[in-house]
Amino acid sequence: MNNKILLAHGSGGLLSQKLLEDHFLPSFSNPILGSLDDGAIFDIDSQRLCMSTDTYIVDPIFFPGGDIGKLAVCGTINDLAMCGGRPLSVAVIIEEGFLMEELDRIISSMANTASEAGVSIVTGDTKVVPNGKGDKIFINSTGIGLVEYPGNISGMNAQTGDKIILSGTIGDHGMAVMSKREGLGFSGVINSDVAYLNKMVEGILNISINIHCMRDPTRGGIASVLNELAEKSKKTFYIDEEAIQVRPQVRGACEILGIDPMYVANEGKMLAIVAPEDANKVLNFMRSHPLGKEASIIGQVGEDSRMGVILNTIIGGKRVLERPAGEILPRIC
Amino acid sequence: MNNKILLAHGSGGLLSQKLLEDHFLPSFSNPILGSLDDGAIFDIDSQRLCMSTDTYIVDPIFFPGGDIGKLAVCGTINDLAMCGGRPLSVAVIIEEGFLMEELDRIISSMANTASEAGVSIVTGDTKVVPNGKGDKIFINSTGIGLVEYPGNISGMNAQTGDKIILSGTIGDHGMAVMSKREGLGFSGVINSDVAYLNKMVEGILNISINIHCMRDPTRGGIASVLNELAEKSKKTFYIDEEAIQVRPQVRGACEILGIDPMYVANEGKMLAIVAPEDANKVLNFMRSHPLGKEASIIGQVGEDSRMGVILNTIIGGKRVLERPAGEILPRIC
Repeated sequence: MNNKILLAHGSGGLLSQKLLEDHFLPSFSNPILGSLDDGAIFDIDSQRLCMSTDTYIVDPIFFPGGDIGKLAVCGTINDLAMCGGRPLSVAVIIEEGFLMEELDRIISSMANTASEAGVSIVTGDTKVVPNGKGDKIFINSTGIGLVEYPGNISGMNAQTGDKIILSGTIGDHGMAVMSKREGLGFSGVINSDVAYLNKMVEGILNISINIHCMRDPTRGGIASVLNELAEKSKKTFYIDEEAIQVRPQVRGACEILGIDPMYVANEGKMLAIVAPEDANKVLNFMRSHPLGKEASIIGQVGEDSRMGVILNTIIGGKRVLERPAGEILPRIC
Repeated sequence: MNNKILLAHGSGGLLSQKLLEDHFLPSFSNPILGSLDDGAIFDIDSQRLCMSTDTYIVDPIFFPGGDIGKLAVCGTINDLAMCGGRPLSVAVIIEEGFLMEELDRIISSMANTASEAGVSIVTGDTKVVPNGKGDKIFINSTGIGLVEYPGNISGMNAQTGDKIILSGTIGDHGMAVMSKREGLGFSGVINSDVAYLNKMVEGILNISINIHCMRDPTRGGIASVLNELAEKSKKTFYIDEEAIQVRPQVRGACEILGIDPMYVANEGKMLAIVAPEDANKVLNFMRSHPLGKEASIIGQVGEDSRMGVILNTIIGGKRVLERPAGEILPRIC
């Protein structure tokens, strides 16, 4: 099976990482791409810009709390949040036979989301594939922004002693999509948390120049992102399970499916790794913002360099929080 | 059928235009997108940037003269040629079961093309869809560049008296893909003309500040692009059929398929609309470049504002060169 693409290659776990490291990076290698942050940072003449791209293949395309259009706009805005994400491009692949009415709903959703977030969609592309050669609609969004923050925000920049702040509950998006897709009879509707974080991030960047890492925990959940940042920064992260909030209906759905919410995608949450002296200031600002009301400090960056994530569990134990190996939830974003 | 997406909505013809005008533009409206050039031009602080996005769904993915990877890199470089297309992002949607060996060929092809063209791939994304929900591989490439040219290049800027220059033969890419896909027994192999035009364009921009429009005639061929530019510039274009070169094997293939080469996609050609005083200088420069050896002046911009394209035919007649209505050749790019 090593010679074929598996669904798990797209899941954000170890196989995704292997696909990148063994196939894409050796060919594409350049220092900007090499940093493997969610967005690339580079200079054009004297200006420092960032750029990020993402394709959205979520199934179903409409789910409680959002749709593929809102997700595509928010997702790229969030990847670019630290640099504003000024303009976006949007490129769609539509399957022949797709209902125009559903396309119009998705277009409106993209337009409304972009407009609320204060971002322009400046260019685009539409392609149509024959019936059966696609799946309703896939959307790529790519954005650029201007990096004005004087500090150094990078996946490689977590420092010993830094506090790890999470902006709210985990697992809402993944479980909202799963519950709709599988028609599971969970008690109560689970809404996706899909939201644009750029305005909250702008506020955070204004009050602290000691933000070291910032990331939205999408594919693979916070477990993936924490592992990635720990590895890049060559540090051990210590996380308190008790500080991580999961809505009861999300926890219930995860239990039914046998999935740990730590590995479930979020689309309106962020992790910030912040110098200890600014951690409470950032936490309090987040809590004053509608998207960060449930923010908390979930852990800290340790002294040693074993490059992993240690979870202090609710029952008082310690365990390694592994990076997901394969497919957790396909087509969540 | 008006309530469903048809293949023809993706063909670059009238239905593509209608899809944009009736569905996307009313929602996304902003002045930058409104100009509907291949790339958007906008300012970030004091710098003038351009941005372009395109998704490639060509079938087959390998064809004489190129593959989907080379096409994806060249296509976006060409859309951005006038502003350099400094960095690119690349996002792939891969179908489960796709052969890793074919993926590696495509990755190499993208890397080699980008490297030769002097462009970095700075960020990317990979998604995997279940078997039967995609078709091998789709690639989105998005690029940005810095606009340094002092003149005004825009689809709206064709001026009465301007000369229309075409950089070479037409129809090669479309017929290369068709001949491979349909297994047609054309005499001799037709090679795609897929190539990056940024270096030739750079030279052109250096020798003339009177370039008014520039466009690579891809989907829908030169007939589509000429009509689009005539319409946007509110002019009539007069084109001499005799000046347009078509390779004999391309013409033969077009005749077998009943297709006019004017409507067939090119991937390494450009149209430039240039003030008359600079036309010969630009023409001579193009002819000195390997990608423009067969360049010629194919027509001029007329005085009247009927916004159409008139073809002076080889047999001495005149006819309106219509914009294609529907599907000409699906999945050519």
